[in-house]
Amino acid sequence: MNFASDNTSAVAPEIMAAIVAANQGSAMPYGHDDRMAEVRARIRQIFEAPHAAVYLVATGTAANALACAILVQPWQAVFCHRNAHIEEDECGAPEFYTGGAKLVLIDGDHARMTPEALDRAIAFTGRGGVHNVQRGMVSITNATEHGTIYHAPAVKALADVARGYGLPVHMDGARFTNALITAGCTPAELTWKAGVDVLSFGGTKNGCMGVEAVVIFDPARAEEFEFRRKRAGHLFSKHRYLSAQMLAYLTDDLWLRLAHQANAAARQLSNGLTTIPGASLVHPTEANAVFAAFPRSGHRRADAGGARYYLWPGDQSMSGPDDEPLAARLVCSWSTTEADVDGILALIRG
Amino acid sequence: MNFASDNTSAVAPEIMAAIVAANQGSAMPYGHDDRMAEVRARIRQIFEAPHAAVYLVATGTAANALACAILVQPWQAVFCHRNAHIEEDECGAPEFYTGGAKLVLIDGDHARMTPEALDRAIAFTGRGGVHNVQRGMVSITNATEHGTIYHAPAVKALADVARGYGLPVHMDGARFTNALITAGCTPAELTWKAGVDVLSFGGTKNGCMGVEAVVIFDPARAEEFEFRRKRAGHLFSKHRYLSAQMLAYLTDDLWLRLAHQANAAARQLSNGLTTIPGASLVHPTEANAVFAAFPRSGHRRADAGGARYYLWPGDQSMSGPDDEPLAARLVCSWSTTEADVDGILALIRG
Amino acid sequence: MNFASDNTSAVAPEIMAAIVAANQGSAMPYGHDDRMAEVRARIRQIFEAPHAAVYLVATGTAANALACAILVQPWQAVFCHRNAHIEEDECGAPEFYTGGAKLVLIDGDHARMTPEALDRAIAFTGRGGVHNVQRGMVSITNATEHGTIYHAPAVKALADVARGYGLPVHMDGARFTNALITAGCTPAELTWKAGVDVLSFGGTKNGCMGVEAVVIFDPARAEEFEFRRKRAGHLFSKHRYLSAQMLAYLTDDLWLRLAHQANAAARQLSNGLTTIPGASLVHPTEANAVFAAFPRSGHRRADAGGARYYLWPGDQSMSGPDDEPLAARLVCSWSTTEADVDGILALIRG
Amino acid sequence: MNFASDNTSAVAPEIMAAIVAANQGSAMPYGHDDRMAEVRARIRQIFEAPHAAVYLVATGTAANALACAILVQPWQAVFCHRNAHIEEDECGAPEFYTGGAKLVLIDGDHARMTPEALDRAIAFTGRGGVHNVQRGMVSITNATEHGTIYHAPAVKALADVARGYGLPVHMDGARFTNALITAGCTPAELTWKAGVDVLSFGGTKNGCMGVEAVVIFDPARAEEFEFRRKRAGHLFSKHRYLSAQMLAYLTDDLWLRLAHQANAAARQLSNGLTTIPGASLVHPTEANAVFAAFPRSGHRRADAGGARYYLWPGDQSMSGPDDEPLAARLVCSWSTTEADVDGILALIRG
Repeated sequence: MNFASDNTSAVAPEIMAAIVAANQGSAMPYGHDDRMAEVRARIRQIFEAPHAAVYLVATGTAANALACAILVQPWQAVFCHRNAHIEEDECGAPEFYTGGAKLVLIDGDHARMTPEALDRAIAFTGRGGVHNVQRGMVSITNATEHGTIYHAPAVKALADVARGYGLPVHMDGARFTNALITAGCTPAELTWKAGVDVLSFGGTKNGCMGVEAVVIFDPARAEEFEFRRKRAGHLFSKHRYLSAQMLAYLTDDLWLRLAHQANAAARQLSNGLTTIPGASLVHPTEANAVFAAFPRSGHRRADAGGARYYLWPGDQSMSGPDDEPLAARLVCSWSTTEADVDGILALIRG
Repeated sequence: MNFASDNTSAVAPEIMAAIVAANQGSAMPYGHDDRMAEVRARIRQIFEAPHAAVYLVATGTAANALACAILVQPWQAVFCHRNAHIEEDECGAPEFYTGGAKLVLIDGDHARMTPEALDRAIAFTGRGGVHNVQRGMVSITNATEHGTIYHAPAVKALADVARGYGLPVHMDGARFTNALITAGCTPAELTWKAGVDVLSFGGTKNGCMGVEAVVIFDPARAEEFEFRRKRAGHLFSKHRYLSAQMLAYLTDDLWLRLAHQANAAARQLSNGLTTIPGASLVHPTEANAVFAAFPRSGHRRADAGGARYYLWPGDQSMSGPDDEPLAARLVCSWSTTEADVDGILALIRG
Repeated sequence: MNFASDNTSAVAPEIMAAIVAANQGSAMPYGHDDRMAEVRARIRQIFEAPHAAVYLVATGTAANALACAILVQPWQAVFCHRNAHIEEDECGAPEFYTGGAKLVLIDGDHARMTPEALDRAIAFTGRGGVHNVQRGMVSITNATEHGTIYHAPAVKALADVARGYGLPVHMDGARFTNALITAGCTPAELTWKAGVDVLSFGGTKNGCMGVEAVVIFDPARAEEFEFRRKRAGHLFSKHRYLSAQMLAYLTDDLWLRLAHQANAAARQLSNGLTTIPGASLVHPTEANAVFAAFPRSGHRRADAGGARYYLWPGDQSMSGPDDEPLAARLVCSWSTTEADVDGILALIRG
Repeated sequence: MNFASDNTSAVAPEIMAAIVAANQGSAMPYGHDDRMAEVRARIRQIFEAPHAAVYLVATGTAANALACAILVQPWQAVFCHRNAHIEEDECGAPEFYTGGAKLVLIDGDHARMTPEALDRAIAFTGRGGVHNVQRGMVSITNATEHGTIYHAPAVKALADVARGYGLPVHMDGARFTNALITAGCTPAELTWKAGVDVLSFGGTKNGCMGVEAVVIFDPARAEEFEFRRKRAGHLFSKHRYLSAQMLAYLTDDLWLRLAHQANAAARQLSNGLTTIPGASLVHPTEANAVFAAFPRSGHRRADAGGARYYLWPGDQSMSGPDDEPLAARLVCSWSTTEADVDGILALIRG
């Protein structure tokens, strides 16, 4: 019963099988393997983007930071939510990769930006000529760090604001498929048709071993990506094992099935929790993470029963009155079973 | 018959088996998995370095560039051979990671620096006060990019020069084990006992899927490594799969056996080539790569017969007189068989 | 009647005379001129800091950014007020010079941080291990960008918070002397005795042509400053003209007299404005800048009469009802006369 | 008798007078002063470049490093001579400003590149796809660091090589006017008509206090210069004093007269030295610096008589046989008189 993160989960069997199957004979290195050509074709097809440039890296931080680096100049701003992964969880990777661009933080409930707040932030940033950091790009995290999602119209509304200022748009889709399942639209509708220029299309958290695709819808922006990736040490020599993961992930709708399973588990958990006395949701459950508060006694029983997850925020204490509610983040993954959810609910409920 | 590079080879079966075996249940992410503790212990034991800090990354470029970043300041110089991998094959990764340090290039036969040449370069660099780039660190590639190695005394002679100026020493050991086999000494003797401070200990080219250990013999230098790794996107969430590779690699002397096989194949190939009329070695064969020149007719037959390798340098032409010798690089790996070598030799010989 | 900024003012006659006097014969370049030795001694004496390292640069942005660069690592945070000059007016210079450190912004009335708000921001930043940007340094602007100051106890209270986390403290003193006049304490009390490690000690805005001293109270931190300054192109070859400015500035209390004049003019202006119907102060007037709101009609008369200053914020419109108050920033300098102030007051009053 | 460097000299009286004259009333800051408009017009006229973008900074290192930063990407190479100022005397400023571009060094007599050597270096750099640093730009130092110059056809020959690879060309003209005097052509012929895209047009070494113009012949490249300059702390608030220097410098051919004087003094010195027994030139004297070897006894007399200059290279010793020749660099400036030259020659001759 590990709800600590979707990255504590294992690799989906179909993907592991593909890795094993790739282990035959020699293969061209550095992305020139045959599987990579298939990956490219598949992603272009899925996203209805026949000219998109597609690259693979092994971590979400690499995908995001490299994406930012090709969209923004060092003296410009990246507009993102205060709780964006690129702000909170990458130890300054965007600043490193962009040569020192500034993340301008935007508040908003449930880790979502509103178009109005985004517009205010952009307008404010460009006011002072050469003395200020300049307007650069917008980055949208979907699903968000608080388990919510942007539906296609919400993405479009943000991208329209960006477009109004001539700014490109990046989507951090480390949990893109989890968002897509809920959004109920096509991949194209949630990305380039809504105005997204570059997508970090996550695999790792959704059943892969370690692979993310960077999908650059306007291939003119792709030219420098290859140099930046190599220079950052993110071009894999034995690239076939990245390709194999992504190819299996995109075969027979595996990516959708895995995210569907994670989202369903989260919904089951969320629904269950709200029936527990003293429990309430902190954020709506729209993807695969549940943010909920429930009495300390429930946390104690869960912990004692071997359930793993993080109190969120982390400065809450397990010492204190039994009935005081503590907030927590519980993340489901492709491998979370109904039994896992039933199990933790039983512990919390007591 | 693929001699293009050791990175076109597959993953050794024992290592793939370990990856598959690691795919059970959940595991703590980001290097907190149990296997990583074992990896650390194993490397400390192998290197007789009980206090060394040990980190895993997935590419050699990441290992080298991060190692440089903790040893040198942006306004300092990295002294290395003109043909070092960090100079020639990483698209400026050391400059990126160090914040703009300067690689000062040292000539030397067979991609090896002499202590005298190193000393001259260091002495020259520090001559002008604040106006020059300052003396920073020394980086030694072992095995070299030309298939030669530094024996332990040669490493020590270079490190002694560095020490004389108070400079730390990095070893790019992407092919460390290939060098070790030939050097016939202990891992400690080829590294810290000879004066090496930080080692990039390669796994990828020698049968792993994608894993390199950075071994920091003086743990005081380790503090910033973790932040730099994270910030560069090289901290893996599903880290257990890196750990599993390295652990299998270091179990039952697999790493030594794999490199032994590669070196033996190269020796067989080298010996065979020198018996072919018109053929000669360009560099001594001391590890797993053969640099040799032989008549164009031999190259034509090899190519027609399906053998793959690079003309080296790359600007030579397959058009021209039959008997003109063309130089080539032929790299053997853990998976190169005697039959592979016999096969290519037969083709070349005609 | 130019109240646009203190940097539109000319050079004080005593300082220009010193520049002219320095123009005799040859002088050692790059800070090895005799006057620089005098400058160093004078600053050490004024600050009661006999071991401080002292360097000159020509702009405040260079002083601040270089100071930050020696106090913070690229993966760390600079804690400062949201309206700090380093955040708002340097086009990302701190990010550039530090290699991508993150400015963490702290709110607070009148551009002043409270110790509580600073403490919260620092505590929050360090919460997540390697995944977050790390705690780095604190930067205090004194006088602030809103014309207020920190008295010595307020500086100490902030520095104590920083010390509690082991963080160094920088003071952006582009208008240090203006703050000092009001603070009524010694230079030492307002800096190192209160816990400041490095001071950007401004000259340019207070009557110099273009010179700022960076005073590093702990000389162990000075070592890398020289390399960073040179590498940034901020080491002047004909350094004597920087030295001459600073030396004249510090001779016969000129620096204090100039700031006293500017502050007195601001106080006169502030007092005068508050007697005008419909006018009010936006921020307390504690240094040489007045932030006040007064009716649009007053602005129109001032503008027609040739007075120059900025509406603040800049998005207010001169079109609209006569009696609607518009906020403005009016900056006095060493060269602002009583007559200038009387003149603009008369215009505004109508 | 100071021949240590042209930067030990004072400011030409006309330029100092202009600085003093500029010290009246208020002026718009940050390059919006009226004099800057005049400077821009004057430089466009002198260079027959009506659309050139023109910016002022205070140091040659800033001019060069900013120029490189707008011409090259971080993953590209700057091709320059091994003895270029940007390689030897700026403590890595180009690496800092460009985000880690690599300087690829080209050998050549008397600090001059040949087109053939340049071509070889560029051809070699681009050979390996994404793995190598890419071809970026060419930087030509004129006059060179060894007191020689490139005539207009030589500049064109180098620029033609660069153009053949699609690379832009920078000229480090810290001593541009000294080169121009000898070249005997127009400023346009020595720059954009020969293929130069960006010129660092030096003032400081030739009689100014501290000002260099960056002349960007293709204004499309200018856009980012302003942000980079501000971000680097090289945009002066009291900019009028930079403008005043440059304007006086360009008025009534002062710049040409000053360089003419320096070059004439160097020629007088060079001619005189070659008549001294045991003396010989190390490099041809084509601008304002003399590189010559003469007996140690001459150095001893010069030193005892108060003449100042550097032994070059710096590792030669004043101890040793009287008649052994030691090489030295002797730099003349606008302020070097015939009497100064006669004086040092008399000392050396004994």
